[in-house]
Amino acid sequence: MKTISENRAFGGVQGVYSHASEACGCDMTFGLFLPREAEDGPVPLLWYLSGLTCTHENAMTKAGAQAWAAEHGIALVFPDTSPRGEGVADDPAYDLGQGAGFYVNATQAPWASHFRMWDYVAEELPRVLFHGFELDEERQAITGHSMGGHGALTLAMSYPGRYRSVSAFAPIAHPTASDWGRKQLSAYLGEDEAAWAAHDATLLVKERGFDGPMLIDQGSSDQFIDLLQPEALISAIATRRQPAQLRMQKGYDHSYFFVASFMEEHVAFHADALYG
Amino acid sequence: MKTISENRAFGGVQGVYSHASEACGCDMTFGLFLPREAEDGPVPLLWYLSGLTCTHENAMTKAGAQAWAAEHGIALVFPDTSPRGEGVADDPAYDLGQGAGFYVNATQAPWASHFRMWDYVAEELPRVLFHGFELDEERQAITGHSMGGHGALTLAMSYPGRYRSVSAFAPIAHPTASDWGRKQLSAYLGEDEAAWAAHDATLLVKERGFDGPMLIDQGSSDQFIDLLQPEALISAIATRRQPAQLRMQKGYDHSYFFVASFMEEHVAFHADALYG
Repeated sequence: MKTISENRAFGGVQGVYSHASEACGCDMTFGLFLPREAEDGPVPLLWYLSGLTCTHENAMTKAGAQAWAAEHGIALVFPDTSPRGEGVADDPAYDLGQGAGFYVNATQAPWASHFRMWDYVAEELPRVLFHGFELDEERQAITGHSMGGHGALTLAMSYPGRYRSVSAFAPIAHPTASDWGRKQLSAYLGEDEAAWAAHDATLLVKERGFDGPMLIDQGSSDQFIDLLQPEALISAIATRRQPAQLRMQKGYDHSYFFVASFMEEHVAFHADALYG
Repeated sequence: MKTISENRAFGGVQGVYSHASEACGCDMTFGLFLPREAEDGPVPLLWYLSGLTCTHENAMTKAGAQAWAAEHGIALVFPDTSPRGEGVADDPAYDLGQGAGFYVNATQAPWASHFRMWDYVAEELPRVLFHGFELDEERQAITGHSMGGHGALTLAMSYPGRYRSVSAFAPIAHPTASDWGRKQLSAYLGEDEAAWAAHDATLLVKERGFDGPMLIDQGSSDQFIDLLQPEALISAIATRRQPAQLRMQKGYDHSYFFVASFMEEHVAFHADALYG
């Protein structure tokens, strides 16, 4: 593992590291905020999965999460959103290929050789983190924005007992029925829609739900709301009686200003679960 | 005035606006955060002046100031750091020309026709702001980072009674004696160093001081500390017995992670003065 940078922040350290990833077949970069408490022993870890076009860096510099993580003594990890590099397949569109991994393991050419973000975030990066840093594997929570909210919800429901709580900012909520989803799931997983169901938060809520607290914020003025389809997820949650807080935030759009505005409450929500 | 963007943020609005500037002879862009309270009437205004290479955008997205400004009902303005555009002089170096206005009125060619950031920040932008938005001209405070800390300190001491409080993050503290200063003051103001003294915070503290509270944070691991020369300013403050809080923050560098880490305390410091 290589240290790209380390900056003192909020009494802790905001680091950026890279490592050779077996899952993705390329070097992968991630941001990790360690609060002061990590000097004394393992601390809880909140995963933050980012949206389309983002790298590890966007949320790390724009979401304002470190202030609240420091307050609660929680670490934050900011993974990249896809494999990257010259040998890695890409597409001219912003919503496919590099920067748009969708947190799945691709099975189709030309994506299958590198685009294994599910394994990366669920298996490989945890090994790197819990081996290399003072992090408590028994206390994890997960959140994300847009495509990252989709990743957070699908991972949380697929690994029962691993994440104590899940939240999302304006998640892609029903990708099997949206242009933010059908295009990518088809490219990465093929035309058989049966393989897509494991990557649709709405379908997963219907099928199994999440055994812990769930918090979802959505801006009412989100310019992408028709692609996100929060109404499908909310309906599934209501039908299942899944414990959840669903908040339609008046006037907010899809930007990091929206994410930052509610970050304090999301981190506090996860802190309740992580220290409960 | 043209609205570039408006995003709901922390219950208020983060806007970006541009206008034809007479002082700078070009279009100028600024960011303005208005808290929810501005819907009901004029609110206090905290100026944030940015450092070398920055536009209006860096601090607006990376300093995490809106969270605290919203808490205190304070507006934030983020001016650009120089005139810009095709007809505006520039230099290949990052620390001269566009992105490096140093908050002075240039008198020397080729800078004199556009580089009038002192007049812009002290005279023209205030007129634009107090005419166009619900801001209380009687309640202003000022802060800044690096070159912007230099701007904040020199403006505050040059307009007694205008700013109720002044703070700075790692300011260029003694530019007449530093390579971050001599080069630029010479280029913009000419070789007669007598003209430089009005733009040196250390010399201004010696000459007149500031009639209000002053807060300065400096990272002990700042990679530019030899250029900033905080020791000169601290010495001048001590000699004058200027009321001030000076904090050498262990392990912090020059980045926005440093700025963000202490933003809560800076905004609270200014709120005390603005509501006092």
